Amino acid sequence: MLLKHFYALVMAGGGGTRLWPLSRQIRPKQMLPLIEEEQTMFQMTVRRLPPLLPPERVFVITGQDQVDALRADVPEVPAENFIVEPFGRDSGPAAGLGILAIAERDPDAIVAVLSADHHIAQTERFRAVLHSAAELAQRNMIVTLGIPAYRPATDFGYIRRGEFLERLHGFDCFHAEQFTEKPDRERAMKFLKSGLYNWNSGMFILGARDVLEEYRRQQPEMYDLLMQIRPLLGASDFTAQITPYWEKMPKLSIDYAIMEGATNIAVIPVDIGWSDVGTWGMLFDVLEGDENGNIIRGAGNGHILLDTVQTLVVSNRMVVTIGLEDLVVVDTDDVLLVCHRDHAQDVRKVVKQLRDQGKDSYL
Amino acid sequence: MLLKHFYALVMAGGGGTRLWPLSRQIRPKQMLPLIEEEQTMFQMTVRRLPPLLPPERVFVITGQDQVDALRADVPEVPAENFIVEPFGRDSGPAAGLGILAIAERDPDAIVAVLSADHHIAQTERFRAVLHSAAELAQRNMIVTLGIPAYRPATDFGYIRRGEFLERLHGFDCFHAEQFTEKPDRERAMKFLKSGLYNWNSGMFILGARDVLEEYRRQQPEMYDLLMQIRPLLGASDFTAQITPYWEKMPKLSIDYAIMEGATNIAVIPVDIGWSDVGTWGMLFDVLEGDENGNIIRGAGNGHILLDTVQTLVVSNRMVVTIGLEDLVVVDTDDVLLVCHRDHAQDVRKVVKQLRDQGKDSYL
Repeated sequence: MLLKHFYALVMAGGGGTRLWPLSRQIRPKQMLPLIEEEQTMFQMTVRRLPPLLPPERVFVITGQDQVDALRADVPEVPAENFIVEPFGRDSGPAAGLGILAIAERDPDAIVAVLSADHHIAQTERFRAVLHSAAELAQRNMIVTLGIPAYRPATDFGYIRRGEFLERLHGFDCFHAEQFTEKPDRERAMKFLKSGLYNWNSGMFILGARDVLEEYRRQQPEMYDLLMQIRPLLGASDFTAQITPYWEKMPKLSIDYAIMEGATNIAVIPVDIGWSDVGTWGMLFDVLEGDENGNIIRGAGNGHILLDTVQTLVVSNRMVVTIGLEDLVVVDTDDVLLVCHRDHAQDVRKVVKQLRDQGKDSYL
Repeated sequence: MLLKHFYALVMAGGGGTRLWPLSRQIRPKQMLPLIEEEQTMFQMTVRRLPPLLPPERVFVITGQDQVDALRADVPEVPAENFIVEPFGRDSGPAAGLGILAIAERDPDAIVAVLSADHHIAQTERFRAVLHSAAELAQRNMIVTLGIPAYRPATDFGYIRRGEFLERLHGFDCFHAEQFTEKPDRERAMKFLKSGLYNWNSGMFILGARDVLEEYRRQQPEMYDLLMQIRPLLGASDFTAQITPYWEKMPKLSIDYAIMEGATNIAVIPVDIGWSDVGTWGMLFDVLEGDENGNIIRGAGNGHILLDTVQTLVVSNRMVVTIGLEDLVVVDTDDVLLVCHRDHAQDVRKVVKQLRDQGKDSYL
């Protein structure tokens, strides 16, 4: 049976300043209970996988500073399924290492490479499309999930659909003709109008054997280093032992390292209520507001929102808002952010400024 | 010389929830460094009086819960000049008691009744008009300072100018024909259009003897109680001793108790850059913003205001604002207020709601 060989690799290395000031280096987005008050994004990521993928078939790749918190967050995932990098080398090496670890366990593995901090509203449909994608991957395709693009976003990658492949359990599958990293607005608008593009969800479903062959073909340096690391897998001081190899690792995203140059790529366009929740503004799209469109998190002290609409409040202290519209108010112990919804992506400018000024305690 | 008998009575009993959440019952507006970062409103009130009125001729009437802080705030004012009410009975009894105390010291006293928490930008002109008003008061007029009304405010009282009296050291003096408490908007608009009205600054300059006679004539019950209190002035346990009398005191404002029914009232219209700083919105009118019209208080941690204009930030933590306009952000230890400038007077609704809910710790 196909699903016997199906695994998930959760990429949980996120630096995590995208939802600053709530997300910090020491508590990145995946560790925040953003969508559900009682569940972190990482917990939701792992727990939406069964029954398709039980916890023992979930692998996690992350950094030394986060692994303890992540293990504690999902105790149902076996501790040895956490692969710990010495430091980040972007998603290309990380995915390669994770897939290698899974392939050691099961050479016939089909792996779903997933992000630890993305939201998926329609979990049943998500598992269904994963199932179909796995079936396609077993036939040596590298499968991506394409998200319907409904606005000319400049902060997502795009996938151009090519030739129609087949209809699989109700999902139309296409050749993926072209990957484009974050385009400028004009180009994004063209993509949107053409009707031929999907957003790149960053989720890939692939055969471990196939993708390792792609590493060998496209990224020989990376592949050689991975092969030198291979015998160390399972060592008790694995992370320390691989450090010299990791230092030599090229820093590349998986899209750039593998996907753009691979030939056997398929895309399955699917609406699963996906969001990378990349900015506070996007959280509005994901969460359901009250009758005034307001979204409140951490309301322990009974916030008071007077004449306030379409406003997001995150705070453990009492917050009083009067006469607000389209604002984001995020209150943490040491920083308060008040931001217009339409300016939410400028949070990164502030984070950059703080980094440049060496104000690391705020990062 | 006239000024030998000139005194100030600073009314410092304010409940102090008008600039909530910064102003609290335990730290009302007069104790806040709103205008200058290093001076409280009360300090500014006392310290703008010399050389016209030196500290030893400044009297303060306040409550038991505030007197220690106020004394510490202006150590140059003799401790015995602080008259302490057992509890508030509005400004009628408070002013009567303060004037009585001054009259005991100097029966020929001319008293300037002032608020502890109003702002006056033009202090020299203020002292000049006080001087002229004192001269008029010595001729048995009760003098009020009238502020040029430039908008149909509904949160001020209005004074209708009557017959022209005289020009005194460059100030035109008029009979005050009518006092109107906070009018509705329509009426305020009529007042504004007529050109005959000034705002009531709540500052009165009057002979102690004259005004006590007005208490006797208009408020005999209040007057009788004051006369029973008179022999207790100077007692070490004064406040405790007057409590039984104070319990019987009618609760009336000085405007209602005395001014509206007095005959010999004059008004001197004068522009002295006055503001009662009654709301966060009014603070904008008083303080000078930076090149973007932003006003920052307590910026110890280096606030970051990005694409933000006409916004007031009060906080000791780091505050980051992005894409804001016309907002007030007031951050205190236990409450955060984010309020549109045009809704600043609705802060009182919130305070009322908290009071009704018994959430006294926030008041």
